[in-house]
Amino acid sequence: MPELRKDPIVGHWVIIASERAKRPVEYHSDSTQPRGGKFCPFCPGQEQKTPKEVLVYKDGANWTVRVVPNKFPALMIEGDLDRSGDGPYDRMNGIGAHEVLIETPHHEKRLSDLDEAAVERVLLGVRDRMLDLKKDTRFRYVMVFKNHGAAAGATLEHTHTQLIALPVVPVNVVEEMNGAQRYFDFKERCIFCDIVKHDLKDARRVIYENADFVVLAPYAPKFPFETWILPKAHGAAFETGPRDKLAPLANALRTALRKLSVALDDPPYNFILHTAPLSPTGAEPASYHWHFEIMPTLTRVAGFEWGSGFYINPTPPEDAAAFLRELEV
Amino acid sequence: MPELRKDPIVGHWVIIASERAKRPVEYHSDSTQPRGGKFCPFCPGQEQKTPKEVLVYKDGANWTVRVVPNKFPALMIEGDLDRSGDGPYDRMNGIGAHEVLIETPHHEKRLSDLDEAAVERVLLGVRDRMLDLKKDTRFRYVMVFKNHGAAAGATLEHTHTQLIALPVVPVNVVEEMNGAQRYFDFKERCIFCDIVKHDLKDARRVIYENADFVVLAPYAPKFPFETWILPKAHGAAFETGPRDKLAPLANALRTALRKLSVALDDPPYNFILHTAPLSPTGAEPASYHWHFEIMPTLTRVAGFEWGSGFYINPTPPEDAAAFLRELEV
Repeated sequence: MPELRKDPIVGHWVIIASERAKRPVEYHSDSTQPRGGKFCPFCPGQEQKTPKEVLVYKDGANWTVRVVPNKFPALMIEGDLDRSGDGPYDRMNGIGAHEVLIETPHHEKRLSDLDEAAVERVLLGVRDRMLDLKKDTRFRYVMVFKNHGAAAGATLEHTHTQLIALPVVPVNVVEEMNGAQRYFDFKERCIFCDIVKHDLKDARRVIYENADFVVLAPYAPKFPFETWILPKAHGAAFETGPRDKLAPLANALRTALRKLSVALDDPPYNFILHTAPLSPTGAEPASYHWHFEIMPTLTRVAGFEWGSGFYINPTPPEDAAAFLRELEV
Repeated sequence: MPELRKDPIVGHWVIIASERAKRPVEYHSDSTQPRGGKFCPFCPGQEQKTPKEVLVYKDGANWTVRVVPNKFPALMIEGDLDRSGDGPYDRMNGIGAHEVLIETPHHEKRLSDLDEAAVERVLLGVRDRMLDLKKDTRFRYVMVFKNHGAAAGATLEHTHTQLIALPVVPVNVVEEMNGAQRYFDFKERCIFCDIVKHDLKDARRVIYENADFVVLAPYAPKFPFETWILPKAHGAAFETGPRDKLAPLANALRTALRKLSVALDDPPYNFILHTAPLSPTGAEPASYHWHFEIMPTLTRVAGFEWGSGFYINPTPPEDAAAFLRELEV
């Protein structure tokens, strides 16, 4: 059973994944990546290599999107939290769900290579899984993210997105919610709505927009070419948003990824869905506004960043946006 | 002039280092590292390739430690902060000092290869520079860190430590100070003193100790083989601590680095000095306790960690400590 341990000073949680336990020698070499076909557990015909699917979309006899439990999960779905002390420290069992959404049967395609309908299916799959996971009252948050490329943490090449349902609201989410709430308390407006309005008018950091979404380089990006996708309409939770906005979201996400892929030669990247904690009552904070953040892995995080939380970014977002805006994809 | 920009939601600062501005194509390849001799600006005989030194220790005619301003600083030493708004956003000029401490004239040596007297000189150099930088009243914090190995962000091979003096207290420092203060408010004790006492008694996470310092695997480590060095005696600020404790600190730091080097085959790593903000009045918080944190770069930070602030660590600290404790170095 993995264990969740709380840092006694700052209060962040760490997952001690004892099922994945490594001796020192095992850190010496990176694992090699299977190249598809019979070596890839995510390819058609290899479905028996993954745990049984929890969601599948089909086109005739063939699947188009599959969601399966992670075979090597960071957290285990079964058991009780068993919150307890350990001397002066705090721990609980590593309960959670860890699922993998296989975005396409085609091993050789990247998410940005898929057509808009296929990207929309990926987003629908995320939404459907979130709506299902929130029925489990042990869970407080579903973290949705993608690691593309080995440098961004991908361990399997076949394109996929991950969902991790957590028994606590992660500290980064709490901080973002608190920051938005402070602004709301002061201004009685959503800070993300204000950013959308201001930056659309200012125009210097706009990369792309359609009727429902805007793609921006944020004012204070941690990383070069960091790119946010914000809905123009206010809403705190991704999974409760209107179904018919998934098509324009797919258009915005696909466009952003294609521009980054062309500009930076298929860079490794992470994207993260920033969305409100699961709400058992259905109430959603007026101060929060879901969005996607895409972070290309172009620079290394080093001692200064780890120590300070400051990030050094050599590319002003206005320059990145101008470059990406003009690219035809 | 670099610019400091504040994230409007979470409030962290970002350094937009326009002097280091990069076009997309420049991110495609990592820079290659000079191999020493006449190609290394940190080697003896190449002193004219660095800005003029701000500190030097000598043994006869030869230097043993040199501190020079960074030739490509993230922040500039000259100018005013000029805090101002930019529409709804906040910015200031990127004022600060960015210095490089060259730990030895010997290009081929790592910090862990130096003898204890040489490691003590490095620590003395850090202390002397901090005492000098704190005379500049624009500065609120001096971040001291080391990047060892390309994967940990080192761009020059010749072993060195960096100091960055900042005009604001970094968010990570504020969070750590606040966490320690919350504990102090509740218990009227320093949490770090409690950790030292508890973990020395418990013994499972102790890697090494001498009369003045303990080397621990922390209870909730973000990274495998993360290693902390804590003074047994309470004190908030490194630079105001007793001069005669630098020798036992050198012994503890050198031992920790040598154990990690043997266990993990000279891993890339960062170390960070966690110390209190600069105090113009000389007052130091009773709740804080300076220490070093060493973080080997063995795992990749990916979407889940960026999004959540949770870290997945496959090596329980008790296992790491047992392994490192038994190593003879």
